[in-house]
Amino acid sequence: MNNFEFKNPTKIIFGKDTIQKLETEIPNDAKVLLLYGGGSIKKNGIYEQVKTALSNVEVIEFGGIPANPEYAVLLNALKVIKAENITYLLAVGGGSVIDGTKFLSAAALFEGDMPWDILSKKIRTEKGMPFGTVLTLPATGSEMNSGAVITRAETKEKLGMGGPGLFPEFSILDPQVISSIPQRQLANGLTDAFTHVLEQYITYPNGALLQDRFAESILQTIIEVAPKVLKDPTDYKVASDFMWSCTMALNGLIQKGVPTDWAIHAMGHELTALFGIDHARTLAVIAPSHYQYNFEDKKEKLAQYAARVWNITEGSTDDKAYAAIKKTVAFFHELGIDTKLSDCTKDYEGTAEEIAKRFTDRGWLGLGEHQSLSPDKVEKIVKMAY
Amino acid sequence: MNNFEFKNPTKIIFGKDTIQKLETEIPNDAKVLLLYGGGSIKKNGIYEQVKTALSNVEVIEFGGIPANPEYAVLLNALKVIKAENITYLLAVGGGSVIDGTKFLSAAALFEGDMPWDILSKKIRTEKGMPFGTVLTLPATGSEMNSGAVITRAETKEKLGMGGPGLFPEFSILDPQVISSIPQRQLANGLTDAFTHVLEQYITYPNGALLQDRFAESILQTIIEVAPKVLKDPTDYKVASDFMWSCTMALNGLIQKGVPTDWAIHAMGHELTALFGIDHARTLAVIAPSHYQYNFEDKKEKLAQYAARVWNITEGSTDDKAYAAIKKTVAFFHELGIDTKLSDCTKDYEGTAEEIAKRFTDRGWLGLGEHQSLSPDKVEKIVKMAY
Repeated sequence: MNNFEFKNPTKIIFGKDTIQKLETEIPNDAKVLLLYGGGSIKKNGIYEQVKTALSNVEVIEFGGIPANPEYAVLLNALKVIKAENITYLLAVGGGSVIDGTKFLSAAALFEGDMPWDILSKKIRTEKGMPFGTVLTLPATGSEMNSGAVITRAETKEKLGMGGPGLFPEFSILDPQVISSIPQRQLANGLTDAFTHVLEQYITYPNGALLQDRFAESILQTIIEVAPKVLKDPTDYKVASDFMWSCTMALNGLIQKGVPTDWAIHAMGHELTALFGIDHARTLAVIAPSHYQYNFEDKKEKLAQYAARVWNITEGSTDDKAYAAIKKTVAFFHELGIDTKLSDCTKDYEGTAEEIAKRFTDRGWLGLGEHQSLSPDKVEKIVKMAY
Repeated sequence: MNNFEFKNPTKIIFGKDTIQKLETEIPNDAKVLLLYGGGSIKKNGIYEQVKTALSNVEVIEFGGIPANPEYAVLLNALKVIKAENITYLLAVGGGSVIDGTKFLSAAALFEGDMPWDILSKKIRTEKGMPFGTVLTLPATGSEMNSGAVITRAETKEKLGMGGPGLFPEFSILDPQVISSIPQRQLANGLTDAFTHVLEQYITYPNGALLQDRFAESILQTIIEVAPKVLKDPTDYKVASDFMWSCTMALNGLIQKGVPTDWAIHAMGHELTALFGIDHARTLAVIAPSHYQYNFEDKKEKLAQYAARVWNITEGSTDDKAYAAIKKTVAFFHELGIDTKLSDCTKDYEGTAEEIAKRFTDRGWLGLGEHQSLSPDKVEKIVKMAY
């Protein structure tokens, strides 16, 4: 096991009818900016619950944060924060709204001139404006971690940021919100959480027994609940297991003491930046090719994944590892998720070269758990995913 | 899944040669009381490492905290804290030293006259004196939770306490400390952590898929490492898996959203209070009888445990559940741990009645996940364990 440090101070409030607990979590004297997305919370009753719980504090609203939270939109929110002397942020939404709120938490206290520097210069946020979240879409784990990914349409960039100052103070997870999520987004959430675990698990073998078993536990749970939650998102029990699995998939725990990959995400983010493909779907496009291309390095863990998660116990290590990749592809297909770029866009020619060039330009010369995936290898992987 | 709240702010610093990080974790202006046990840290090099790391802060020492941390001894430490205006506590030891330090953290800021009230009146500690730990014996999980158990020889009592103010600010876990732990204590640690998981898992079925799988992951890991760590405690890889499993077994995570039992601990504590039997060994004495006595309520989970942890897939639910109890007993025996009270003391006559009477006197009229184990049932379980 590798040396590690782990601290996650976010308070999770999980369960039925918990949105009302906002009342006791936000300081009475706070001036709150309530951030949300496209307005679905006004149709499914969540907005009403939030407003009722906040009736004793001063609240200003900022809606319209898009999927892949857009820098230009967030700058408008930042102006509101400064003009209104906001002291507390509340994200009501999925990963995009929460990530956008994390950017604002950092930017509100940032002392430089250009908030984009936080992303482009990879400035860690040690202290941000305090914020909480009400999660409306299980997927990204952003509700219990300190990272965010922000998109800038102007430059077609999608970059990550983070730091210990960006943990939510609290996150409210009421699985009842799942009942009104469209099928496409449920499938995205399942795919996103599943791939988060793969990125922290399918690496070279490291022999950290408990971390491996925890990763396998999350994968097994997602596989078990996936068809059920798609069939009946009003099933509270299934929704609870789904929601908690997504949070545990990326709250920092399973990555401690082990190597992690994240090359799938790095490549996937470019597909979103270039084509606007849903984040989760870019992961499903890249993952199979990535595992094929890096087969020799990853086959031991792929075979373990085959045996423990998919119950594939026959054959050689290579046989099991290949079968695991096939099972993963089939799983995504069962969710209605494509695994080839050509199924997502017809305009894919030149994409591999473009992404390789971007990585070269940014100096990203070695991705993956060995930092060995150079831009020319990235080009090959993306091409395999056409 | 049941509603739950989860917040665990302890910073874990895990790995080789991490004791030196004390230097940056304790504030420079702190006046530290360094607490330890019987002095083994002076023989295995840990004391030297701690003192070196603390060379820039003022440190006073208090050694001699016994296993089952004794109230009378802790009161002497409390006098030192007050007389010396101590501002920070550092526990260097196992669960007993850490639990004792938690009591002192609470008692140092307690405003009542009688610190014992914290235990006897179950007063939750919202804010304690800040403290950190250097773990020298994996077992109790105290290094990453906010609970403690204190013993009072005078009244032969052993009672629990806790509260959100009693999380360590940091805990340093260097698996190298395991190389000098005696076999008896290694076996105790394995048994203690294993039983912690059972208490949070072998209940009535609740259907929380991920929590069940996480519990099974810890049990599987302990079973896998147990013979190896006993055979060669200098094997760093095995020591790491053992140490992290013990922490995860009782840091609050796996108990969230599910029913928990803890009747084994309640009965076991009395055996320690009455006879001085090692804590872990009391759990191994009580657990098998407890599961036999409550077989009907627990057989579904016992059968799941049989299948997933012990690979017992043949037979009826009853068959598998019985086999799981037998496997658990055999596992304890392989560790050199007895599972009958008569193997621990010859003076056991009347113990069951005495424990039942104590529970009645304290008003503990219903233990277990249904709060249905009345003192007369406790009497029967303890008798079965003779």
